[in-house]
Order: sequence, then C-alpha cells, then structure tokens
Amino acid sequence: MNRIITISRQFGSGGREIGRRVAQELSLAYYDQEIVNELSERTDYAKEYLQEIDQIDPLPLMPINIAQSFAQTIDPISEMNHDIFQRQSDLIQELAQRSDCVIVGRAADYLLRDKPYLFRLFIVASDDFKIKRCIEKGEVNEARNLKQLQRDIKKVDKRRARFYEFYTHQTWGDPVNYDLVINTSRLGIRRAVDLVKQIVENRQLPTESE
Amino acid sequence: MNRIITISRQFGSGGREIGRRVAQELSLAYYDQEIVNELSERTDYAKEYLQEIDQIDPLPLMPINIAQSFAQTIDPISEMNHDIFQRQSDLIQELAQRSDCVIVGRAADYLLRDKPYLFRLFIVASDDFKIKRCIEKGEVNEARNLKQLQRDIKKVDKRRARFYEFYTHQTWGDPVNYDLVINTSRLGIRRAVDLVKQIVENRQLPTESE
Repeated sequence: MNRIITISRQFGSGGREIGRRVAQELSLAYYDQEIVNELSERTDYAKEYLQEIDQIDPLPLMPINIAQSFAQTIDPISEMNHDIFQRQSDLIQELAQRSDCVIVGRAADYLLRDKPYLFRLFIVASDDFKIKRCIEKGEVNEARNLKQLQRDIKKVDKRRARFYEFYTHQTWGDPVNYDLVINTSRLGIRRAVDLVKQIVENRQLPTESE
Repeated sequence: MNRIITISRQFGSGGREIGRRVAQELSLAYYDQEIVNELSERTDYAKEYLQEIDQIDPLPLMPINIAQSFAQTIDPISEMNHDIFQRQSDLIQELAQRSDCVIVGRAADYLLRDKPYLFRLFIVASDDFKIKRCIEKGEVNEARNLKQLQRDIKKVDKRRARFYEFYTHQTWGDPVNYDLVINTSRLGIRRAVDLVKQIVENRQLPTESE
C-alpha cells in the first residue's frame, strides 16, 4: 500500500518546497516537473505548453457548466487540453502504483481519491508572505515589477481554481477536499515539513472511521 | 506569554471535543459554555439568548455591508446583539490575559489576533462524518428527524459565517485566516488532538518570519 502525498498550493506559499523537502527527507519519489518531462516524451506536445497546463483556463469567460459541455465537442484547443489532462491522469495513476510518492498540483488529490493511503495537503499563506517569498526568489525583476507580481499571484491561483473546478467539479482550496491545510506564513516551511513528515512516518492514515 | 488556542469549527465536525481534550490533556483553561455563564452573571441577558448569540444572524436578509451600518443605529435587537458582542469581546480579552487557554468559537481568533502566541484552528469534516457524529450523540430524535438535522447542520454554519463576517470583515473558514485546518473525517479526532498538542507543547509558535 503506497503512501501518496498530494500537494495543492496557493502560488508563492511554499507548497512545492514543502513537497520537495518531505520527499527528500523521507526518500519518497517526487513528481512535479518530472510529470511534464515524461509526458513530453510520450506525446507530441511541447514541454512549455505542458508546463502551464494547469494554469490555462479551460475555457475563459464562460460559466464552468457551459464550458464543460462545450469543451470536448467544439473547441480544438479545449480538445487538446482535455487530451493532455487524460494522458496526465493516466500517468499520475501509473506513478502512484509504482511507489510511495509526493505529487504536486494537477488535481492529483482528486484523481487518486480512491487510494487507501492518500494524504491530501493544501498550502496557503498571507499575501505579505507570498510576496516576500517571491521577491527573495528573484521573481521581481526587469521583466516583472512588484505590481505585476501581485497581479500574477492572483491570476495564477484563479486559473488553478478554474482548472481544478473544471475537471473535478469541486472547489479548489475548500478545506473539506483536503486532509490538512497549513498556513505557512504562520507555521513556517520548516515546521510544515516536520508536521507532514510526522504524519506520514507514523502512517497516521487518513480514515473515515474513528 | 500565554498560549492561546482558538477553535472555530463546522457544526458536527468535533471541533469542540478537540478543544476540550487538548485543554484537559495539557491542563489549559477551557472556555466555551463558561463564557456564557460568566456573561450572564455580569449582565442581565438570559443565558439561553447568550448561548445562541453566534448563531443569530446579525441582520437577516441584508447584504453584510448595509447590515453593518444599519445595525448599530436603528434596530434595537441588533443594538442588543452588538452590546453582547462588545461585552463578550472584553471578557475574551480578559480571559486571554489570565492564563494559557483554549477558546471555542466567538470570533476569538480575530479578537485576539495581536497576541504573541496564538494558535488558530479551524475544524472541518465531510457531511457523512458530521451526520454520523450527530446521530451518535443522539441529535436525531423525536424532535428532529434526519432531514431536519441535515438542514440544521447547514443552517448553523451559515449563521456562524454571517456572524463572523459581520464582526470581523473576514471570511469564516477561509484557511488564510487560520494557522491550521484539520479535516476530522480523515484524520480522526484522536489524531487531531495529538497534532495540536504536539504543536502547543513544543511551543511551535506561529510566526510571520521563517
């Protein structure tokens, strides 16, 4: 029974870093960019496009329910995105079979919802924390000023939310869809890593029964 | 520097029980019904009314922003509720000064936001878990059938959300307003208690700096 940890996160909250560190410190497989690489080898899609897939609005300017029925029948770009999502989903299922692992983003929490040991994390942080972190990582530069960064933080999350809602019919970031939501601006990344490790190490299995 | 743990929770999620157990096992003061008792001794308000105060819609059928300006000037019931909220807030500040403690509900997370050691929890659970728990506690009976319980679960949370939003201008249950959100239908109440205890015992202070 593989231990599978899925990490969803607000842009800039440090979710990816938490995932990377947990995987490293517990010697679990880690899948993020790796999924893009593998997909691009298996398909004809450009890596750059695959990279951004969960930030591409499935069908902008349409209510989700209309977009859903529309997407797979008429619009060629949506059809392509749908195909990518399908292949990515198959790959995620395959990886989850292979070994213990950490998977970042890509609605993996939903795709793997029937797995017996699944730990679904959502990582949030205050705006100040996210901006400070992005600045430290050099994401404010000649190509992007502070105001643009603030806009981007909102934009990326909005798109992730629409992507998630489109494919899962669930609300992105609604705590009920996850097992634990950590606010890194309060607990800090190191403590978040330790908290997650402790639960995974002790095999404190998420369970519906008490 | 007192350790203050505030617990906000969805109705039926086991939040109150988590609070009670953490307080008991760590020998912290616990404030829930105690606040009602104390308030009713200090004021002329009936205990029964004080009990339900965070489930009374500040001003029903009005957008929050209109209700806010309207409430304190015209409507006598709103004026009374506002007075209760004020006295309750003062009492909560007083209790937080007194010793380490656990406080359930009452927007305490917001009221005490400037305290140096504050751990703000929000507890959620799946509908199935909440219903099962309520049934086990005998909350389905001659006076209330299952359908009514399901309605009540939604209704209580909706009112708590409006109460919270009215007084704090924040969204009730939005993970960014808390430090940790625990899904008890997945982690179970016992594990939730242990998780919280561990953070409090190690004085893993919530902090804005990493």
